[in-house]
Amino acid sequence: MYAPTERTQLKRLPKRASYDQAQIHAILDEGFLCHVGFVLDGQPYVIPTGYARSGEQLYIHGSAASRMLRNLAQGIDVCVTVTLLDGLVLARSAFHHSMNYRSVVVLGKAQLVTDPQEKWAALRCFTNHVVAGRWEQVRQPADQEMKATTVLVLPLNEVSAKIRTGPPLDDEEDYSLPVWAGVVPVKPQFGEPIPDGRLIPDTSAPRITRGDPEPM
Amino acid sequence: MYAPTERTQLKRLPKRASYDQAQIHAILDEGFLCHVGFVLDGQPYVIPTGYARSGEQLYIHGSAASRMLRNLAQGIDVCVTVTLLDGLVLARSAFHHSMNYRSVVVLGKAQLVTDPQEKWAALRCFTNHVVAGRWEQVRQPADQEMKATTVLVLPLNEVSAKIRTGPPLDDEEDYSLPVWAGVVPVKPQFGEPIPDGRLIPDTSAPRITRGDPEPM
Repeated sequence: MYAPTERTQLKRLPKRASYDQAQIHAILDEGFLCHVGFVLDGQPYVIPTGYARSGEQLYIHGSAASRMLRNLAQGIDVCVTVTLLDGLVLARSAFHHSMNYRSVVVLGKAQLVTDPQEKWAALRCFTNHVVAGRWEQVRQPADQEMKATTVLVLPLNEVSAKIRTGPPLDDEEDYSLPVWAGVVPVKPQFGEPIPDGRLIPDTSAPRITRGDPEPM
Repeated sequence: MYAPTERTQLKRLPKRASYDQAQIHAILDEGFLCHVGFVLDGQPYVIPTGYARSGEQLYIHGSAASRMLRNLAQGIDVCVTVTLLDGLVLARSAFHHSMNYRSVVVLGKAQLVTDPQEKWAALRCFTNHVVAGRWEQVRQPADQEMKATTVLVLPLNEVSAKIRTGPPLDDEEDYSLPVWAGVVPVKPQFGEPIPDGRLIPDTSAPRITRGDPEPM
């Protein structure tokens, strides 16, 4: 369990809140993109980017030339949010329409990863977060690629999840209305892999699985 | 075309930027969730929520009791980001892995919608953004539901899109490696609708389409 703080405690609908470590890890391991929020000159920015989790560390990365990463690396306050949409909740009244989702919000200060071993291990995590085992199949980073990549780490300290599941909750008198109500499930669908046209014969496309994270 | 500003001009990879109105509208109309960024006591927060577009207005809404909405309604600076993940881009080197995506970032100050007609029209937009024509089938809001709902509007003035498409771009010497490379397409899959168990006979589940937005 993570300890709720003043900033992560859900004020409304507290029954949707979770601070359960396993549940939060599972949400983070299932997503592909996070949204990173940071403040520059008083203006908030929210930028989508890849990420990976290893233990109690959340890593984000990008070009060393990225304005976002250069700013974050100064240790400014960030919010990293990962959201999985699970379903469209269709009620009999407009008011009770909702969505089923699982989201995780992480607050803290991102820090630059400077240790070469930690950086290497984080880069492996990014690749294997997308396709399990892929790091071991591809060409691993050269020195100048390592230099061109910035990795930031945010510890999972101040963190909370918000989860809605289940059917719509209509007002009692609306259940007599002749309106379909229920949940339309949503999940990511992975299409037929599209080879890039310069493949060496007999290479086969990887399967995307959203299974257990690898140990780092 | 939206005019790029100092804050929305892409500094890196400018060829991924778009300020095209039709393209930006299409991205906003295709998504279900946005991520809203705002600042409280210096800390950025990024919260997922539903939204809808009507013309050059982006609407978000929620409970009048929501801390986020009460703060945003004061006219503070926000960033609303909508991201669609289109594919996992698998290269022959770890370094060139990427994602295909379309994202829109809107900067500005959200304003409370106080005009009852505009608020009503916005609520219709939220419902029909999820399922076209649904507003016309369900029970529309009662007075106390209107009071319990806060609607905020953010004009599409300072807005930009960022888009990556196409195959991985590997280093020339890596094309000889025996590694599968290409794109695994990703899109939302809508599952079999799950009725909520208290349906009136002969109500049929709606079809989810991501077509053209309705005029408001």
